[in-house]
Amino acid sequence: MRDFLPEDVRRRHYVIDVVRRVYERYGFEPLETPTLENIETLTGKYGEEGNKLIFKVLKRGEGESSGEADLALRYDLTVPLARVVADNRAKLPRFFKRYQIQPVWRADRPARGRFREFYQCDVDALGSTPPAVEAELCSAVSDALVELGFTDFVIRLNHRQLLASILLACGVPAALQGTALVTVDKLDKVGAEGVKAELLQRGVPGGAALLRAFQAANDAPTGELDRLAEFLGDEPGGMSAIANLREIVALAAGTKADGRIRIDPSLARGLSYYTGAIMEIAVADLAGSLGGGGRYDNLVGMFLGQDVPACGFSLGLERILVVMGERNMFPPALARSAADVMVSVFDQKDLGSAMAVAGRLRADGLRVLVYPDADKIGKQIKYADSRGIPFVALLGSNEVAAGTVTVKDLKAQTQQTYDQAAAGAAIREALNDRG
Amino acid sequence: MRDFLPEDVRRRHYVIDVVRRVYERYGFEPLETPTLENIETLTGKYGEEGNKLIFKVLKRGEGESSGEADLALRYDLTVPLARVVADNRAKLPRFFKRYQIQPVWRADRPARGRFREFYQCDVDALGSTPPAVEAELCSAVSDALVELGFTDFVIRLNHRQLLASILLACGVPAALQGTALVTVDKLDKVGAEGVKAELLQRGVPGGAALLRAFQAANDAPTGELDRLAEFLGDEPGGMSAIANLREIVALAAGTKADGRIRIDPSLARGLSYYTGAIMEIAVADLAGSLGGGGRYDNLVGMFLGQDVPACGFSLGLERILVVMGERNMFPPALARSAADVMVSVFDQKDLGSAMAVAGRLRADGLRVLVYPDADKIGKQIKYADSRGIPFVALLGSNEVAAGTVTVKDLKAQTQQTYDQAAAGAAIREALNDRG
Repeated sequence: MRDFLPEDVRRRHYVIDVVRRVYERYGFEPLETPTLENIETLTGKYGEEGNKLIFKVLKRGEGESSGEADLALRYDLTVPLARVVADNRAKLPRFFKRYQIQPVWRADRPARGRFREFYQCDVDALGSTPPAVEAELCSAVSDALVELGFTDFVIRLNHRQLLASILLACGVPAALQGTALVTVDKLDKVGAEGVKAELLQRGVPGGAALLRAFQAANDAPTGELDRLAEFLGDEPGGMSAIANLREIVALAAGTKADGRIRIDPSLARGLSYYTGAIMEIAVADLAGSLGGGGRYDNLVGMFLGQDVPACGFSLGLERILVVMGERNMFPPALARSAADVMVSVFDQKDLGSAMAVAGRLRADGLRVLVYPDADKIGKQIKYADSRGIPFVALLGSNEVAAGTVTVKDLKAQTQQTYDQAAAGAAIREALNDRG
Repeated sequence: MRDFLPEDVRRRHYVIDVVRRVYERYGFEPLETPTLENIETLTGKYGEEGNKLIFKVLKRGEGESSGEADLALRYDLTVPLARVVADNRAKLPRFFKRYQIQPVWRADRPARGRFREFYQCDVDALGSTPPAVEAELCSAVSDALVELGFTDFVIRLNHRQLLASILLACGVPAALQGTALVTVDKLDKVGAEGVKAELLQRGVPGGAALLRAFQAANDAPTGELDRLAEFLGDEPGGMSAIANLREIVALAAGTKADGRIRIDPSLARGLSYYTGAIMEIAVADLAGSLGGGGRYDNLVGMFLGQDVPACGFSLGLERILVVMGERNMFPPALARSAADVMVSVFDQKDLGSAMAVAGRLRADGLRVLVYPDADKIGKQIKYADSRGIPFVALLGSNEVAAGTVTVKDLKAQTQQTYDQAAAGAAIREALNDRG
């Protein structure tokens, strides 16, 4: 787990602010949930592998010595959302569109862009089933990525029911479908021959057919859906999934997701709660995804005892930051110094005047540091320079007596004396000229 | 622990954004630290009572069954800062001024404005000892509170060394000073007679003298410091503490803290790491404080093996929110609806057009909801009204054919048809007129 020094924090908040602004444009409202959930809220929701990665919190007080845990750290933002919707059904609108940008924790092995504490930026729409929901989610996350400067991402789209139909058509019995998916998911890593060998070894039939079916043959979504429709014939589950995907693709054409969507029949998504369309956003230079999501119509029902349709998308902040850092995508202004101007006095007795001048400059909207020690003025200016602070406001006894301040421009190596009331405007103007 | 629904989150972010903006004006830079710290980083830093309130995280994997904890949840923002400064001494500037706004966790009994998960908004200045540091911290937190609309707060100021000198002068031996302070701290709750009785019962001598010394007699800081100087005579520790407080008060007079400071000789502050001036901000209608802080010159040394002077102030977000809520201090705009406009279609086949129109309106900076279901138009409009959404953009087959959209103003009960490209500007204008 990592500390974030000032420039890191600025970068993180820049991305979060852009994503938040875009999500709000789509009518999503903010929600935040506690870091700690009751342990039974989380267990059993993320599959067996997920269960092992949950951070668990010891009971407090007398319970502590039992070594038992009763709370756990948030593992994703979707399960807490389902709990909140179940807890607040009467308070929330029929169509609840929420966004949530908070950290989650997984006791995973760290890798590039993967950390044990990381932020998810989620949007979810609850209460509606039409494919317009999926299309709008694809548009919202595309909009956010475009606003951040990404031009080359692709949204891989698939459907849980389509996956099941393909497996069935290839002769994989229901009991072996999970195993088959986990294996096919490694296509990128071990190649077609590797997957075929592993399928054989695990006793999954139909390996060659599966690989053919899962290997997308068309870039255009309609072409790929035509191919899959032909492959599956008129099997009803597959047909209805393909019809759903066709509608999503058609609706997305009028949105920011236009031209981004690829049908990828091998996309599986690890989490067990998905029931319909599933999505994942990828860029070429990052193994893994920038984010993903899908429809999960049964998860709220696990808390409420009554299903509420739901669909969501999650962007991974850390993945976005890694790629933006490597591609130099951050605005240069984020690398700014701690302050616009530093106030310095020649004599400690004038420190009170310095603080008053600092207050005036702040009232003019400037970020102002007051040099706190009684060092020689040359040393003070050197410090401002080393911190990249562009201006120093100097107060000598003459300035204090006259109510003026001498502003030194460290880059231009010039200085000018102003009325204390006028110095702020002058510095602001000089900063604006520099951009 | 609590869920925050949309209006709660908006209020929280409003306060956080104001505080962050003010802190940045003072040249503080952002820092964030991980939620989980190694358990030994936290234990022994908060006193015996604090130790019991730390949330501890079970070891993962094979260690889990041992029932042992190796990690703990952040308990405050000061100890992690000291660790970060020790870890990054070479990377950080000589005077490191950082702010940090993050949640902390304490397994405490909840009360009004007190929660087990709560946010602290900290500013700390490391590397310098002059009293200008304390004065600037008082100014920064005052500035933040004034910007939030507080007019009636008071900064209680005291000094750890002054406390010790008063106790000594009243004949309390060093070994009983902790007990004496804990007891005197209850003055507000149990009154002078209660404190006297408890001091007697606990075997602390000098109760009557202590109560006289600790009862502030002057509102003006200089008057109160004069009184204490007289009381202590020329005892060197007390004299140097009083001189320090005099300088802080004098320097603060030129800042936003002017007129806010009261010397309160009974202020103790619970945490054990303070070494010099201590502060607490209070308003009349909240038992407890909105925030507090002080100088802690030895804490970094516990990690670095070499002391780094430090002084900080922490505002409690939840306390601020409680008082602001009770006093109706939030800007009315925070109670805004989820969207500025909802797009509706009469016929599902026009949903693609609706999404394209929504995209145009968003490009004009509006927050736009697309009604996702194929309900009757009256029901759709009723939904927008129930959510407080002021405008509905209607797309019938005529509008779709003509490239127009009919904008219904739900409050004025009027409607007008616009070119799709012009609707956004018209809605924005109408919203601006409403303020």
